[in-house]
Formats: sequence, C-alpha cells, structure tokens
Amino acid sequence: MTQDIIDDVTRERYDAAGFGRPVGLGSKPALLIIDVQYRTTGTTPAPFDRAIEEFTTSCGDVAWDAVANIRRLLELFRSKGWPVLYPYVAPKKAFDAGALGAKVPGIMDIPDQGYEFHPDIAPLEGEILLPKRHPSAFFGTPLLSYLVQAGVDSLVVTGCSTSGCVRGSAVDAFSYNYKVAVPSDAVYDRSPLVHEVNLFDMGQKYADVSTTAELLGSLQAIGA
Amino acid sequence: MTQDIIDDVTRERYDAAGFGRPVGLGSKPALLIIDVQYRTTGTTPAPFDRAIEEFTTSCGDVAWDAVANIRRLLELFRSKGWPVLYPYVAPKKAFDAGALGAKVPGIMDIPDQGYEFHPDIAPLEGEILLPKRHPSAFFGTPLLSYLVQAGVDSLVVTGCSTSGCVRGSAVDAFSYNYKVAVPSDAVYDRSPLVHEVNLFDMGQKYADVSTTAELLGSLQAIGA
Amino acid sequence: MTQDIIDDVTRERYDAAGFGRPVGLGSKPALLIIDVQYRTTGTTPAPFDRAIEEFTTSCGDVAWDAVANIRRLLELFRSKGWPVLYPYVAPKKAFDAGALGAKVPGIMDIPDQGYEFHPDIAPLEGEILLPKRHPSAFFGTPLLSYLVQAGVDSLVVTGCSTSGCVRGSAVDAFSYNYKVAVPSDAVYDRSPLVHEVNLFDMGQKYADVSTTAELLGSLQAIGA
Amino acid sequence: MTQDIIDDVTRERYDAAGFGRPVGLGSKPALLIIDVQYRTTGTTPAPFDRAIEEFTTSCGDVAWDAVANIRRLLELFRSKGWPVLYPYVAPKKAFDAGALGAKVPGIMDIPDQGYEFHPDIAPLEGEILLPKRHPSAFFGTPLLSYLVQAGVDSLVVTGCSTSGCVRGSAVDAFSYNYKVAVPSDAVYDRSPLVHEVNLFDMGQKYADVSTTAELLGSLQAIGA
Repeated sequence: MTQDIIDDVTRERYDAAGFGRPVGLGSKPALLIIDVQYRTTGTTPAPFDRAIEEFTTSCGDVAWDAVANIRRLLELFRSKGWPVLYPYVAPKKAFDAGALGAKVPGIMDIPDQGYEFHPDIAPLEGEILLPKRHPSAFFGTPLLSYLVQAGVDSLVVTGCSTSGCVRGSAVDAFSYNYKVAVPSDAVYDRSPLVHEVNLFDMGQKYADVSTTAELLGSLQAIGA
Repeated sequence: MTQDIIDDVTRERYDAAGFGRPVGLGSKPALLIIDVQYRTTGTTPAPFDRAIEEFTTSCGDVAWDAVANIRRLLELFRSKGWPVLYPYVAPKKAFDAGALGAKVPGIMDIPDQGYEFHPDIAPLEGEILLPKRHPSAFFGTPLLSYLVQAGVDSLVVTGCSTSGCVRGSAVDAFSYNYKVAVPSDAVYDRSPLVHEVNLFDMGQKYADVSTTAELLGSLQAIGA
Repeated sequence: MTQDIIDDVTRERYDAAGFGRPVGLGSKPALLIIDVQYRTTGTTPAPFDRAIEEFTTSCGDVAWDAVANIRRLLELFRSKGWPVLYPYVAPKKAFDAGALGAKVPGIMDIPDQGYEFHPDIAPLEGEILLPKRHPSAFFGTPLLSYLVQAGVDSLVVTGCSTSGCVRGSAVDAFSYNYKVAVPSDAVYDRSPLVHEVNLFDMGQKYADVSTTAELLGSLQAIGA
Repeated sequence: MTQDIIDDVTRERYDAAGFGRPVGLGSKPALLIIDVQYRTTGTTPAPFDRAIEEFTTSCGDVAWDAVANIRRLLELFRSKGWPVLYPYVAPKKAFDAGALGAKVPGIMDIPDQGYEFHPDIAPLEGEILLPKRHPSAFFGTPLLSYLVQAGVDSLVVTGCSTSGCVRGSAVDAFSYNYKVAVPSDAVYDRSPLVHEVNLFDMGQKYADVSTTAELLGSLQAIGA
C-alpha cells in the first residue's frame, strides 16, 4: 500500500537528499507496547464506522491485525527475557483536560472499560506499566529511568496510533539516541493515508521500518 | 492543495471521531522560528533538485515563500514586544552523529555557511537563540525555562521542516499544554505530500492550523 | 536554630559572594505538598527512634509540626482557588528498585498504609495527584504540563524531606524559572543538621526561605 | 573533616533508617567535569576572600586541590577510552537572567576570562562540550543522548560546586538510574560546612562517595 500512497516525487526527493539509511539493532532491545487498550481496538473486531460507536478513539479492525503481530513480538521478547514495557493511556481525570481536551473533547469521556488492556497482549506480573497523559511514552513518565536501568540500546515501538503516540515515542527515542525499529504491521491508526505517511516519515528520519516478520528475523539474530 | 492530498475517508473518520476542534490563542504568545538557516532555504531561491546541490538539507524555493510569511509574523511580534525565539540547528561536531548520523549521514557534512540564519528573519540583539541537536526545540534545550520566565501561554511555530522539527516542537508544546498555532504557509518541507499530511495531523491533534493571514488577524485581536 | 548550625564563615562567604537575594512571588502561585504520607509522618506523632519502627522512612514528630503549617497554607490556597498539587511516592513495584533500591534497600518494603496521605492535608476531589518514583516532583511526571495549563508563575514547596524531594523539586522549579518559596517550618527531614543546611542552600541559591507565618502574609498580599 | 561536621545524631539516624548502602560501578563509566572554569577556580590559587575579588563565583584554593584530583581521574578515563564530558557554564546573555539573576545578581557579570576552562583539565578535540544555563548538567542539555549513545551505565561526577551543579547532576543521574560516584576531594565548594553536608546527603541517598584514590582503584578494576 505504501507504494500507492507515497508518490514518486516524494520518494525521489528523500533519496536524492540522502535520508532513510538503515540503522540496525544493538544488542539489548526493549519492546514498547503503546496504548493497546480496548479504547483503540474495541472489545471486538469491527469496521471503523461501527468501532467508533463503542469508543470514539477506536481504530477498528486494523487494530486486531496489528495485535496479532504485537503478540508474536511479545512472545519473542518474553522468551529472550528482554524488557517489555507498557506505556498506556491513564484514565482521564477532569484536571487532565488541558490542550488535549480542547483539541479532542470526546477523548475525556471514554468509558472505563476502554482503559483495559487488550487481553492478547496484556502485561504479566513484573512487566513495566507506564501510565501516561501525553502522546510520547517518554513525556512525563519515568520510561527513560527504566531503560537506563535495563541497559537497553534499541527499542521496538508497537501499538497505536502510528501518527500519535507511536510516532511521538519514536521521535523521542531517536532523539535520545536509541536505535528504533517500527514494525509497520504492528502499529495502527484510523486512516490508511495517515498511517502510511507517518511510517514513511519515521523510516526516512527516525527509525527502521519493516514488517514484523522481517523484524523477528533481525531480533532472533541478536547475539547469535 | 490540502483538499487534494487528504482523502475523503480520512477527513470523514477524523470528523466522526471528534478530532480537530479549534483551541485558540491565550493572552501572551511567543514566536518560534525553527531552523530557518541557509541549510534549509539555500542562499538563493531554487527548485528542489537544484537546491540540494548547494545543501542536501535544502527544501528549495518553497522555503522562500514561507520566509516571507514568517517575516510578517516576526514584524508583528517585534512591534508588540512579544518574545521571539530561534531554535536552530547547531553546527555538527563528530560526537553529535548518534542516531541522526546513522539515519541521514549527509546531514553531518553541511558547509558552515549552511548554519547562518536567513537574513530576512535573522535575530536581533536580545532575541533568544537556542542551538539544538534534535528535532524538537524543547529536546535538550532550555526553551521551557525561557517560556516560563516570559509567562507565555501560546506558541506560534514556524520554520522547517513541517514533518520534522516543526512537528516535533508542536507535539511537545501541546504536551506541555501550550496553545499551539501553526501557520500552514510559514512552515515548509521537502515534499508536498509530507507537508500536507503533517499539517493535517497537527491540525487534528495538536495545534490550530491556519494561513499566516488568518493567524495575523487572531494575533492582532489579542488584548484588543 | 539556623543561627547555631550555619557557621559565621559560611554566612560571610555567601554574603561576600552576593548570593541569597530575595526573589518574591509573582501573581499566580501553586502549592506543592510533597510526600506527606504516613510513610514520612507515621500514623501518630512519635520521636524519631520510635517512629522508624513503624516506617523506616518516617521523620518522627517534626513531621507533625510541619503538617500543621502545611494545613494553614493549604487552607489559604483553597480559599483563593489557587492550584494545589500532590506529588507523592507511588507504591513501589519490584521493577522500581533501580538506583534507589540499591542505595536504600528498606525503602522498597514500606507497608501499604505508609502510602496513604496524612489526613490533615489529604487531597480533595479535583486537586492534582502526581505519583512519582524519583526525588524531584518534576522528574518523570507531567507536573510541568499542569503548571503551564494553570498559568502558574510561583511555587510554594512544602513537605518532605527537606534534603530530598523538597530540595530536588525546588532546584528543578528554579531551573524552569519559577519563583520558589520554601516555608522553613512546613518542610521536614530526619536530622536537624541536614534540614538546616539544605534550607540554607535553597535560600542562598534557589528559593526564598521564610517561616509559614511570613509567607502567609506575602501570599495574602498578592493581588491586594 | 566529615567526622566533625556531621553530628552523631545525624549519622545514627541515617544508619538506623537504612540509608547509604554502596552501589558500586557498572562496566562502562563516563566522567563529568562540571564547571571547572576560571570563574570557579580563579586564574591562580588564592584564599577565598582574595579569590572572590577576581570572580565572585570563585571558591578559592580548595578548587586547585580538587583540580589535581580531577586530572588524575581524567588521565585514567582518557587512557581507557571512556567518555569524558564537560558540562560548563555558558557565558550569560541578558535573556538568561531569570530566577538565577534574581537570586544571585552578580553571577550575570562575570568577565569573559572566567568562562575559560582551567588548563589542567581542558577538553581535548573530540571530548564532549555541554554548555548549560542551570545547575544540573542534565537540565536543558542533550547530556542524556550522549550517554545513551555511548552505552554508559555509571557516572563519575567531579567539579563544582558540591552543593550546586555537582549535587544537581548527581540527583538527576541517580533518578535516571545511573550508578553515581562522587569523589569527595575532586569536588569543591565555597564553605566547608556546605561541602561536607552535601557530600553526606549524596552519600546517603544518591551516590557512592569516596576519595579519588579509592575511586581510581575501583575504576581500574573494571573489566580486569
């Protein structure tokens, strides 16, 4: 799909300017599973238009395809004993409205069930929970302290939305000089156009973007 | 142009989900002029393909159109005595390579002249300079301290690139709960597609996006 | 007591070097009540040696004197409608050990009751809660976003410990260019020497240090 | 000297509460040399009272003793190829006044020569320079990005002042979960009381405090 959405002029210009070189992985990756809660997946797979009737923040059935891929990554990380962290949207209190409540008022009224983790990727005892109030998983959270403690050098960023919390987290991770990998089919968003252009931006400037299958191969090769 | 690039499905979904409400301005705005240096504008207006022969980071002649609009905003801010801040790309030292040098190697070798400010918007004595090494103007800089000192509540974000430092700064400003305005014709990027989709993303989630002309009207109305 | 603990050479040197000028308050203060939980006060007033039998992190009966003063400040802030924020120690999970667990192992095993707020200053509905894992109330929390949202320009820092979370928060607040006031008898610590020298340091470099009574007078004069 | 300044009650209380356990070093340390510029050492060794006639921010001849110890650490780090970073006070512009200029007005008027590095520890080509405007070396600087890039797990914090930028940096480094070592005779301050109590605080809560000689031994044992 990327082929169709990203036009030739755009591709040619980024190539000519020398962007988008691969960065690779280091030796100690961590997995971020961002905002994979019912509020973004819905409690059952449904097309977008129906999904937003349950939670206005839902992305619909594309979320469920991504969850299956996140699950594959999660199983690898658990089997390797690599860190798994869950930055997630903290239930909103009235005092959290701020700029977000002004821009997207409905986001303040998501029913409680929306904040539950999707059961296919739900955290195990000992996996790190990071309630957050802003897009980036680093913003206003102690994420960095956990990464330093674990001696991490690479981050696999999954979840939702591609253009929101995934991208915000990838930009910050890049700025902190982590090696960042974004599996294109383990992140999801509410529009194909927005999803693809944000993957393109990340791949050109901040992260290595590949399929989950390709990334699983690279991860399995670490230390081998 | 936005009309053509953002498809109907995308617009309808964001509307249905309740994104993109206007936030407005507060009573004390500051102007950020980000990375408006020869390295992104070139020393003369030129089409993209020729511009990158001078500096690979150049966006070509679209930059010059934006600079004219930034200049109009700058004149208003100076006449009102509102803060003007210049986050800009610090000349690269070898130790700055990091994730950026891995992703975009050529960015480490921009000639010195590329780091000069475009003369049409060059800072005056007393305007605040913020050398930076990462996309967001807030990342690894004391920007926030200057904003607190000045009692600012709103930020007008201009410069380059729409998808890079402008967006990164807008997301952080939003996360800190500043009211953010992005004038669509006072920011620039190397591809129309990327420029427009990033404006769309910011307008839906993080900022009010309008033309410079519209924004000048809103700014002049402050305190009137 | 300060008179006795801070020696003349120290006072003379800071005076000669020009430190310690008063900064004053702005027009919109916020109150930080830091870590005033049973884990630092105990569930009843007791001398230090007995208090640490209940919670090893307890400061003993000096805490209760401070709580009475915090209460006076809290009542003023509530009556004025100024923001009140509660940065507090989040209950520790195993993954929180990190550098803190290495330095002070016992801090990982405080009983649940220790995390309850002291009832005399407990938050009301709508007052802002900030669970934290590190000394400064700004570190790994969204505190700054709440302060920007509220348009705050001054911070009154109270609670515990003077040398730990109070000082860490005061240094960060100063670095962000907030006007910082520390009421000397509304903060507490486990040793008089450490308490006094940390008040001295803050008063010379980062904050205005006065009694609660004096500070109440200054606060009441705002906008009058 | 610590023995005299820290009273028995203080020591007993921290011991009883279980503070001050040793943390040790990891496998990849970095050296921070903070603010060792003529503005804190003077251009020649002199007693405090004379030293502040040259620069009001000078600590006098204690600085020169510390510089000799920093030099020993620096030589080891250079011989091992471990990272050396120089957070230093950036020359003040008028717009930098802020809370610091209010608290310590004279600090805004230090002559240019004061900002030069002390020649005994001056940076070599390739060592990382970090101009800063606030106490902590992490605050408003990209320090963390350099540490992540270098894969550092431990920080040796040296320089000036013990109660100011050294302590501020140590608290932040601790909060990020770095293992922190502070060599007591390679940091300096303007008063013995303040110096010693701040070393005590850091040793109890944030860092391992030892002599330079002891620390050199521990560093040499890394990887051996």
